[in-house]
Amino acid sequence: MKKPKIVILGAGYGGLMTATRLQKQIGANDAEIILVNKNDYHYETTWLHEASAGTLHHDRVRYDISKVIDNGKVEFVKGTAVEIKTDEKKVLLEKGELEYDYLVVALGGESETFGIKGLKEYAFSISNINSARQIREHIEYQFATYNTEEVKDDTRLSIVVGGAGFTGIEFLGELGNRIPELCKEYDVPFEKVKIVCVEAAPMVLPGFDPELVEYAVAHLEKKGVQFRIGTAIKEGTPDGIIVAKGEDDVEEIKAGTVIWAAGIRGNAIIEKSGFEAMRGRIKVDENLRAPGHDNIFVIGDSSLVINEEINRPYPPTAQIAMQQGELVAKNIAALIQNKELGSFTFDNKGTVCSLGEDDAIGVVFGKKVVGKKASFMKKMVDNRALLMIGGASLVAKKGKFNVL
Amino acid sequence: MKKPKIVILGAGYGGLMTATRLQKQIGANDAEIILVNKNDYHYETTWLHEASAGTLHHDRVRYDISKVIDNGKVEFVKGTAVEIKTDEKKVLLEKGELEYDYLVVALGGESETFGIKGLKEYAFSISNINSARQIREHIEYQFATYNTEEVKDDTRLSIVVGGAGFTGIEFLGELGNRIPELCKEYDVPFEKVKIVCVEAAPMVLPGFDPELVEYAVAHLEKKGVQFRIGTAIKEGTPDGIIVAKGEDDVEEIKAGTVIWAAGIRGNAIIEKSGFEAMRGRIKVDENLRAPGHDNIFVIGDSSLVINEEINRPYPPTAQIAMQQGELVAKNIAALIQNKELGSFTFDNKGTVCSLGEDDAIGVVFGKKVVGKKASFMKKMVDNRALLMIGGASLVAKKGKFNVL
Repeated sequence: MKKPKIVILGAGYGGLMTATRLQKQIGANDAEIILVNKNDYHYETTWLHEASAGTLHHDRVRYDISKVIDNGKVEFVKGTAVEIKTDEKKVLLEKGELEYDYLVVALGGESETFGIKGLKEYAFSISNINSARQIREHIEYQFATYNTEEVKDDTRLSIVVGGAGFTGIEFLGELGNRIPELCKEYDVPFEKVKIVCVEAAPMVLPGFDPELVEYAVAHLEKKGVQFRIGTAIKEGTPDGIIVAKGEDDVEEIKAGTVIWAAGIRGNAIIEKSGFEAMRGRIKVDENLRAPGHDNIFVIGDSSLVINEEINRPYPPTAQIAMQQGELVAKNIAALIQNKELGSFTFDNKGTVCSLGEDDAIGVVFGKKVVGKKASFMKKMVDNRALLMIGGASLVAKKGKFNVL
Repeated sequence: MKKPKIVILGAGYGGLMTATRLQKQIGANDAEIILVNKNDYHYETTWLHEASAGTLHHDRVRYDISKVIDNGKVEFVKGTAVEIKTDEKKVLLEKGELEYDYLVVALGGESETFGIKGLKEYAFSISNINSARQIREHIEYQFATYNTEEVKDDTRLSIVVGGAGFTGIEFLGELGNRIPELCKEYDVPFEKVKIVCVEAAPMVLPGFDPELVEYAVAHLEKKGVQFRIGTAIKEGTPDGIIVAKGEDDVEEIKAGTVIWAAGIRGNAIIEKSGFEAMRGRIKVDENLRAPGHDNIFVIGDSSLVINEEINRPYPPTAQIAMQQGELVAKNIAALIQNKELGSFTFDNKGTVCSLGEDDAIGVVFGKKVVGKKASFMKKMVDNRALLMIGGASLVAKKGKFNVL
């Protein structure tokens, strides 16, 4: 009898959680498990804002996948999935293809620019290790170039962050700490640097408690961040961005660096493979399967789960992806063992938004926290992801231990 | 009676040696000493290739001028000299002006591109702290960008060094050590990187012992450097350079980074101020004065001293600049005290050319040395410059101590 073949696409929070749980729940003789990922490393998506600002080295933000998978049970394939042929039960990779009996789609999201002209060409997005270190180097190069020019171009030192959501705010917090270091490193006067956050929505961190938002804005402003709220980016240009407050109130903001941190959508492979989706996200059933596909599970940023309380989708986070991964591992084991599948319920343990090295805001187990205490909680959240996937040894190696 | 006013322009090897010797030889009541420099720090010009490659941080390559001058005797003015009005005995600065009774011109050299089209626009030169850190960041940015692109552009990883003279070779030596680090840092395959040294002359390191040159070439080639000797750069372009071997043998070398390290000339202020000069260098008299100006001494890269043995000018080096500075301090003291002036004789203690962290070639006190031993000698040469200007405490702080 042929062993069932389980293919997991993606080694992000969801995919890696699925793989590491499956290897405990299924014997090597019961199924073949294949984990496919573009890189041979996993990276902490939720730490990328630090690598991008240059406050944490990108090697601290990633680890080898081989370190956390049981190589006797899980076969790792380094490859990039380009399409899923559901009728043939196979995945096309850039090089070669893979057949599956059970498929887990955990490919993560993509930056969404909503068709705004010039953003793809001229703005950076905090998407992965490659883009993070490019952003860090780009900003450093702008600072390094400043003093080499006869006529100083102050706009080299301007950084625009598009979006005051979670990623935008966390990145601004790191920039707040990084800019004084950069000024020292490159002999640049601090007062020449300009950091502008442009947000189309009428508020910062929508969905967060207003009192916490006020704290965040005040603390970031103290670090030199200027907020332009209710202001939409109309266009990205080689020199910066064009914004508009109303229809006519158009203005150019010149900046040597523009970071677009305002949108995320599901993976393009979802639509390409013919799944019904909203912005690349599949509304999964209660067992986390793609509707109409009993053997395909979709988790993480390409999945969509409705928060019944407010009848809106849960935002894509590492927390939800990991909980989905846990359930999918159980459900695949159940399918193989002809047992009943479990349903997904998101257990929200809270959210902490970092504002730099030693500051944060958040709600943890229903309680509001700010400042150093919140920052400590944030580090514990970060360490928890390491613990869940790689155990104590991974925490020891990659964890964040700055204390109160 | 008015105290005579001594103005020293430039705090490089020559200017700083003059200032630190003068402050020992002249009492505070005997003369007013003013040291003018663009920056409030001195940098080790001969170490800039390391900062440019990124093998030594630029802060290791500079120190505050205030740390080595006696602030009770020498007044430091941060400013940029733009012209010397010899008939009015004053120096025009970008902001303000300074009168002098005795003037020391120690303003250093400038990169010389011999009118080759596009080099000023598209090539970097290893000239000062600003350009060094820009080069470092530029190369890092090219490596950081490589993996972010769908279609990989290998020419981003190509570095062209124009010139196989002292600076070019020393920079190549550092690159040889740095490239493997950069490949690791940015997940770039080493075999994709290309380092090309283009030299118009028919040889590497003209003037050096052929046996030593052979050693240097072999060791750099082992590190991956390709030499294109007898090949002239015809043009710098946004994509790289155009070279030619003969008249018709024209070829494009695409490269993300082009460093021009092939020419140096005297400071432009020399010609602007009406001195007779060859490529900005004044052929000074035996007392190191500009011909026809009894009160103006010129030292370092803007001075020209003939090596009588071969009837050619000594190449501009830190060693000669410092020896000139010592004599000028003595000669100015002599002028004030109505004593006889001394004549300059260059005491060549040898030359060591670094080939990276632990390799070098050189002739020291007439003996040929290579490898680790030569590299050790090189570090001693570097430390000696610190010792001569700032004493043992400066060596302790900024010295190079890697041992055999």
